[in-house]
Amino acid sequence: MPTLRIALAQVNSTVGDLPGNAASVRRFAREAADAGAQLVAFPEMMLTGYPIEDLVFRNSFVEASRRTLHRLAADLAADGLGEVAVVVGYVDADGPAPTSADAVPGSGRRDASALLLGGEVVATYYKHHLPNYGVFDENRYFEPGDSLTVVRYGGVDVALTVCEDLWQAGGPFAAARRAGVGLVVNINASPYELNKDDVRLPLVKRRAAEAGATVAYVNLIGGQDELVFDGDSMIVSADGSLLARAGQFTAELLIHDLDLPDAGEEPNRAGTAPAALPAKSDESPGGEQRADDDMAIRRVDSGRRPRPLHDGPAVGGIADRINDEAEIWSALVLGLRDYVTKNGFRSVVFGLSGGIDSAVVAAIAVDALGAERVVAVSMPSGYSSAHSRDDAADLAKRTGLDYRSEPIQPMVDAFLANLSLSGLAVENLQARVRGVILMALSNQEGHLVLTTGNKSELAVGYSTLYGDSVGGFNPLKDVPKTLVWKLARWRNADATRRGQEPPIPENSITKPPSAELRPGQVDTDSLPDYEVLDAILTGYIDGDLGRDDLVAAGHDPALVDKVLRMVDIAEYKRRQSAPGTKISIKAFGRDRRLPITNRFREGV
Amino acid sequence: MPTLRIALAQVNSTVGDLPGNAASVRRFAREAADAGAQLVAFPEMMLTGYPIEDLVFRNSFVEASRRTLHRLAADLAADGLGEVAVVVGYVDADGPAPTSADAVPGSGRRDASALLLGGEVVATYYKHHLPNYGVFDENRYFEPGDSLTVVRYGGVDVALTVCEDLWQAGGPFAAARRAGVGLVVNINASPYELNKDDVRLPLVKRRAAEAGATVAYVNLIGGQDELVFDGDSMIVSADGSLLARAGQFTAELLIHDLDLPDAGEEPNRAGTAPAALPAKSDESPGGEQRADDDMAIRRVDSGRRPRPLHDGPAVGGIADRINDEAEIWSALVLGLRDYVTKNGFRSVVFGLSGGIDSAVVAAIAVDALGAERVVAVSMPSGYSSAHSRDDAADLAKRTGLDYRSEPIQPMVDAFLANLSLSGLAVENLQARVRGVILMALSNQEGHLVLTTGNKSELAVGYSTLYGDSVGGFNPLKDVPKTLVWKLARWRNADATRRGQEPPIPENSITKPPSAELRPGQVDTDSLPDYEVLDAILTGYIDGDLGRDDLVAAGHDPALVDKVLRMVDIAEYKRRQSAPGTKISIKAFGRDRRLPITNRFREGV
Repeated sequence: MPTLRIALAQVNSTVGDLPGNAASVRRFAREAADAGAQLVAFPEMMLTGYPIEDLVFRNSFVEASRRTLHRLAADLAADGLGEVAVVVGYVDADGPAPTSADAVPGSGRRDASALLLGGEVVATYYKHHLPNYGVFDENRYFEPGDSLTVVRYGGVDVALTVCEDLWQAGGPFAAARRAGVGLVVNINASPYELNKDDVRLPLVKRRAAEAGATVAYVNLIGGQDELVFDGDSMIVSADGSLLARAGQFTAELLIHDLDLPDAGEEPNRAGTAPAALPAKSDESPGGEQRADDDMAIRRVDSGRRPRPLHDGPAVGGIADRINDEAEIWSALVLGLRDYVTKNGFRSVVFGLSGGIDSAVVAAIAVDALGAERVVAVSMPSGYSSAHSRDDAADLAKRTGLDYRSEPIQPMVDAFLANLSLSGLAVENLQARVRGVILMALSNQEGHLVLTTGNKSELAVGYSTLYGDSVGGFNPLKDVPKTLVWKLARWRNADATRRGQEPPIPENSITKPPSAELRPGQVDTDSLPDYEVLDAILTGYIDGDLGRDDLVAAGHDPALVDKVLRMVDIAEYKRRQSAPGTKISIKAFGRDRRLPITNRFREGV
Repeated sequence: MPTLRIALAQVNSTVGDLPGNAASVRRFAREAADAGAQLVAFPEMMLTGYPIEDLVFRNSFVEASRRTLHRLAADLAADGLGEVAVVVGYVDADGPAPTSADAVPGSGRRDASALLLGGEVVATYYKHHLPNYGVFDENRYFEPGDSLTVVRYGGVDVALTVCEDLWQAGGPFAAARRAGVGLVVNINASPYELNKDDVRLPLVKRRAAEAGATVAYVNLIGGQDELVFDGDSMIVSADGSLLARAGQFTAELLIHDLDLPDAGEEPNRAGTAPAALPAKSDESPGGEQRADDDMAIRRVDSGRRPRPLHDGPAVGGIADRINDEAEIWSALVLGLRDYVTKNGFRSVVFGLSGGIDSAVVAAIAVDALGAERVVAVSMPSGYSSAHSRDDAADLAKRTGLDYRSEPIQPMVDAFLANLSLSGLAVENLQARVRGVILMALSNQEGHLVLTTGNKSELAVGYSTLYGDSVGGFNPLKDVPKTLVWKLARWRNADATRRGQEPPIPENSITKPPSAELRPGQVDTDSLPDYEVLDAILTGYIDGDLGRDDLVAAGHDPALVDKVLRMVDIAEYKRRQSAPGTKISIKAFGRDRRLPITNRFREGV
């Protein structure tokens, strides 16, 4: 029974930064090799970043990906890493060069995994199951692979698979069982959603059972626009035992020794141009057999032996799971940090009102970037309460961020002197003057503007377009109001636990929320209590429940009608809203695509 | 050889307005029946509007669609139209009620066509080919149908098909040949793109040849968010002759008598629960045979005879094609009108600078809504030239729109007195003050704000976010600058030809474009000549060409690098931009999905 020391490189990559991502592979491969690893696996689309979206339609991009892959193979060998098998994701295309303007777009483009060894691309595999739901549009982009690639290396048959292959029964894992492999390497770019880690482990166990083989699952970390990847890489044996598991939202190499079944018989020496073998359907598992269980199997002999293991056994260990609030907080911090740094910003600016939303954004920003890169601006009007200013100043003192004050009344008065405005127009004017101030500071000093609206507000349109919605990124976009409070309490308690000062003033957490756009205004003038509102919104948005379902669930019919109507008519605001980190099963953005022009009214 | 009088109802529908769309079907069915029509075909998704996007995931919506269909069948009979076959598109689902939260989203939902007769839903067909490219995401939404429905009516076998079924060889049209049908009814929601009508006719001819049958193609008209549907319904005989063709962008009934082959043998009396017949693969055409040529055929006997024809033959006629500029102008006018009216606005407001973009938007808005529903605001600054104000006033006089002036300097000065701003921050401040003024007027008076940026500006980010980009709709979003000028010249010449006053001042067309945000500024300070810029942009955006392709096409390498970089880094602005009517093969919006965070730089 051969032993293979495997390293799962749970690392960050950046969309489009092919040279930087390749350099990252070389750096982590070196580190893994120094720890004796014989096979190092990197995430899906490691070289290109994920998701690349319509970049895939540009041939120059696909060619750059292929060129980078081959150069990486050579560079690894030049680095003295030619004896280490490196599995890495990239985008490929059929034929010598892809052709544009196909009748069927995406045709010929492949979401690919390659095994590099000895300076060469020894084997490639094309993702078979393409997700086309939620935030995923992979039927738009890729053609599915129809054969499983099995590489013999160190006496073990290793199957290559990619991400969604794991989420559906049949296909590659069934083929892996037929091929009798010892190890399935599954490379992922699997975005975070609350509690997704609870789903992954049983899923990997089911696939390990289906394949009858150990499964090595490696996932990306890092933020990419609205998505954040949480890592959670793991190794599960054929019998369903969790052998090793990496942390969440952490960059790390998970290195573990695996005793794997000997491939046995004489290897099929097909080299780098393997012949397709017919599938043996009588070996496929009964329960989950599907039409695509007839995937062909391509066998490749790596033709090389791994470096011998000299030191004692490597044990990856099983990292503790963090709790829900910590998970979400980590996602929001990493999502913001990567948006800022990958887009070349040095600092952020936002309006700090003393309310809960901007207070939590301030704490996230300070955790993500450090207080010296965070600028918060208090922009009081005549309607701003004294406690608001005090709470904002208190937060600034607690966190040490750059705090400024820009009273808006002179600018508001200039508009009021020249235009005849009343009611809502005056309320919105104040929010828009604040937006102009933040954008002026951004233009003058180079900060990225953050907007601080939460998911509940975005859902019901409780915001001013081009006012408080101004900003390039919204950390709370997918965080309902009730969760904002929960996160604030958790962050403060966590600080206390660690002997640090809680960043968020208690008063910002406990006082009734108000937009302070007219005297004595509170959110409950226009909205139900947030506990009630968020329950309705979760049903309607995340659950696609209709009016009758919501009423049957015990909600007040008139309230349901009011809330649903508010959600429906606010679509135009959401269409122009800033991106923000997805943490729920259905975030606004590409996850939920609704027409603006839409006369459907539930229950009418 | 039976004669069938067919009516193609090229009409408008509104997403989500199920009662209104059903009423529309009843009204046009009545009108067609009054002209003796025996079969009336309405567009794809007529009852729900198209595209419904993620509304399809809400069971309450799908149920409303099904309920509306059955009520419509009964209502038509109650209207005395039970003897007229009505073909209509709607959304359906498998089983008595769809279930939410499927493992595979979209599972069980169907893009469906139904034939209504005698108060009943006599037959249904589920779209087989699902487009998942460009603006389409139908693999996300629908499960493909796998059988062709053939209805015997008036001695003719009529096959039902939907939209994309026509755009791909094999499948339903091949099955229609095997089934020996006399007529294929193809219902569409096919969005406008420049010259798409030139593609449709040969396509319909190819499918008519493939099916060996007459094809009746009916398409929607009207605007839906970023899409506009252009009609262009037509009938083509099996031998490829164009028998009748409706106009472009016009609501109309195209009524035409068809002599169709007798179905011959005794009808298969399977009634409303037809048995699937095996396909006869030896009858499929050789050249375009595909794997899905084995679609099953479901035969339904309508069990009814059409009303006899009393009057002389109905001849639909062949409408003239309009030229490119007229086509685009019609698309922009209809797209704007439907966005305004379907969203319940009465009027629009925008900034009228005297430049070409806002002048063309003014002309489009007046054509769409009438001058009395169009408010244009001149918002001069210290940098605005006298000719700008003159040109704006001249346009107002020519068109008769509501013209106002709001000088911005007092508000700009209020910001400058309170913030330390210079350079670009001051330029953008002026644009943002204008945005605040327009939004204040919108809030105060209820107008929809239009933004007037063109596609070239949007491409290179030559605009101020939350400044001149403010607005709920952008008529020129997909119109490159050079085409803006061309449209202006065409619109003026067309007015002259019709003996009317040209709406656009000649000076707005001929003067060098300028944002007038600093003294003496012209666009060419920052951008190449628009002829050169638009050529590069068309290659890069519409054609997905890379840097090397563009240089090989003769463009200056340094200029290509500069333009491509501008396009790449402006993605964050486009993500928050207003919707606008698509007229090109690739519009910004859902047609082109690029990451904001993207370090890929062509040629680096």
